[in-house]
Amino acid sequence: MKHKLTIVKVGGKIVEEPASLNQLLTGFTQMEGRRILVHGGGRTATRMASSLGIETHMIDGRRVTDSDMLRVVTMVYGGLVNKNIVAQLNAKLDRDADSNLMPLGLTGADMSLIRSHKRPPLPDGTDYGFVGDVDSVNTDALHMLLEGGTLPIIAPLTLGADGQLLNTNADTIAGSVATAMASIYDVTLVFCFEHKGVLSNADNPDSVIQRIDSNIYSQLKAEGIVSGGMLPKLDNSFAALRAGVKQVIITRADLLADLSMATVITL
Amino acid sequence: MKHKLTIVKVGGKIVEEPASLNQLLTGFTQMEGRRILVHGGGRTATRMASSLGIETHMIDGRRVTDSDMLRVVTMVYGGLVNKNIVAQLNAKLDRDADSNLMPLGLTGADMSLIRSHKRPPLPDGTDYGFVGDVDSVNTDALHMLLEGGTLPIIAPLTLGADGQLLNTNADTIAGSVATAMASIYDVTLVFCFEHKGVLSNADNPDSVIQRIDSNIYSQLKAEGIVSGGMLPKLDNSFAALRAGVKQVIITRADLLADLSMATVITL
Repeated sequence: MKHKLTIVKVGGKIVEEPASLNQLLTGFTQMEGRRILVHGGGRTATRMASSLGIETHMIDGRRVTDSDMLRVVTMVYGGLVNKNIVAQLNAKLDRDADSNLMPLGLTGADMSLIRSHKRPPLPDGTDYGFVGDVDSVNTDALHMLLEGGTLPIIAPLTLGADGQLLNTNADTIAGSVATAMASIYDVTLVFCFEHKGVLSNADNPDSVIQRIDSNIYSQLKAEGIVSGGMLPKLDNSFAALRAGVKQVIITRADLLADLSMATVITL
Repeated sequence: MKHKLTIVKVGGKIVEEPASLNQLLTGFTQMEGRRILVHGGGRTATRMASSLGIETHMIDGRRVTDSDMLRVVTMVYGGLVNKNIVAQLNAKLDRDADSNLMPLGLTGADMSLIRSHKRPPLPDGTDYGFVGDVDSVNTDALHMLLEGGTLPIIAPLTLGADGQLLNTNADTIAGSVATAMASIYDVTLVFCFEHKGVLSNADNPDSVIQRIDSNIYSQLKAEGIVSGGMLPKLDNSFAALRAGVKQVIITRADLLADLSMATVITL
């Protein structure tokens, strides 16, 4: 029987505010079993870039990463945000006598965990710069770390050709790691966002749809109950499930310790 | 019989210049056996602070670290410098079919590797701020990483009380890690600096003293051959040796692959 592994993805908004970060980490430490945290940090990167006189350009919500911006995201994601999460998790775990877990901050470059290639310019000339699309995940290395008692905290940077660091979307990293690790573990992938789960009524934050499978999803789409920005999130979830992930959970970051109110997605 | 472990300390000057960093990493990949790299990054931190309008204050060559400067060193040491070293080492090792070593960037906060306490203000009121003096090294965790095939690259940040990151001198980290790991390995501690070794004649860069032990050191001091900034370096080396480190080597960063021209210090 495979061990369980939970991969939690949180966006920059949550890890950049001391109060919401604290809630997230409290819930994360209360979770059971092997787990990995994948985090963003875009808002801090944008602020830091601005302080350094570097302009931020976004295309369809994705950051254009020239060499100056790459330095900023390397510092902010790999250093500032990642190491602060690691340090604060240590403090929380120190207070928990039952835990021997060791938080370990990582990028995709460490142990070649996540290799990628630089995204080529689009036919229309759009060039995202030093942005990486994931090619492979070093499952052996992550397996060794997890079985060694570490709690991997992954910043959204990957390793391109010739030692080139590349900026990579944190959702993509979480999905890639989850599907790759599904060969070794029973993987649950948790996406944290601003609601308790997928809502049946956008105006009612308590109208969480508790369970979605392929049939229910088709129905929800046909009835127009799920639409807009929720569609790519759910499409990605089903892609992960088809690639071997056991379940995908969509919830709010402060509710990690109790997933009974979340939306659970299965095939 | 214990395995050999070599701990190499390099200063910021070397890791911050692409050409000297490249030489260092080439030599480092050619070394044999288990090894750890401890690096600085002070010059980049000073430049980054200046770009952000943060003034750098040094007392006796040590950086005063207020909360703004702590953010800068966390970004620069833990992110920019550390992850660039890791990424470039990966590229070098990719070209070496014989190597399965996996570079892994770390701070003292990761896996609680290096715990410290915040240095209290001195009696004269001097306050270094968020600067940590080392209390302990998690030798079990480092042992697990080394035996798992990683190549730890350590940035000069440690973990204080309550999840507080602290800025810590890289020489001190190298010495602390070396003495702690001496319980498990036969440890060689290598300090890289600007000369090929300890010189008998400051004006002749080739006048390397090949071997120094306690007796020779007393003699060199009595004759005034070794003086000034070299004295604390050698005193620290003998302290490490008395604490169990097998040998200390003083050399130039570009000569790591062949230590036959370096100064070897033993008790």
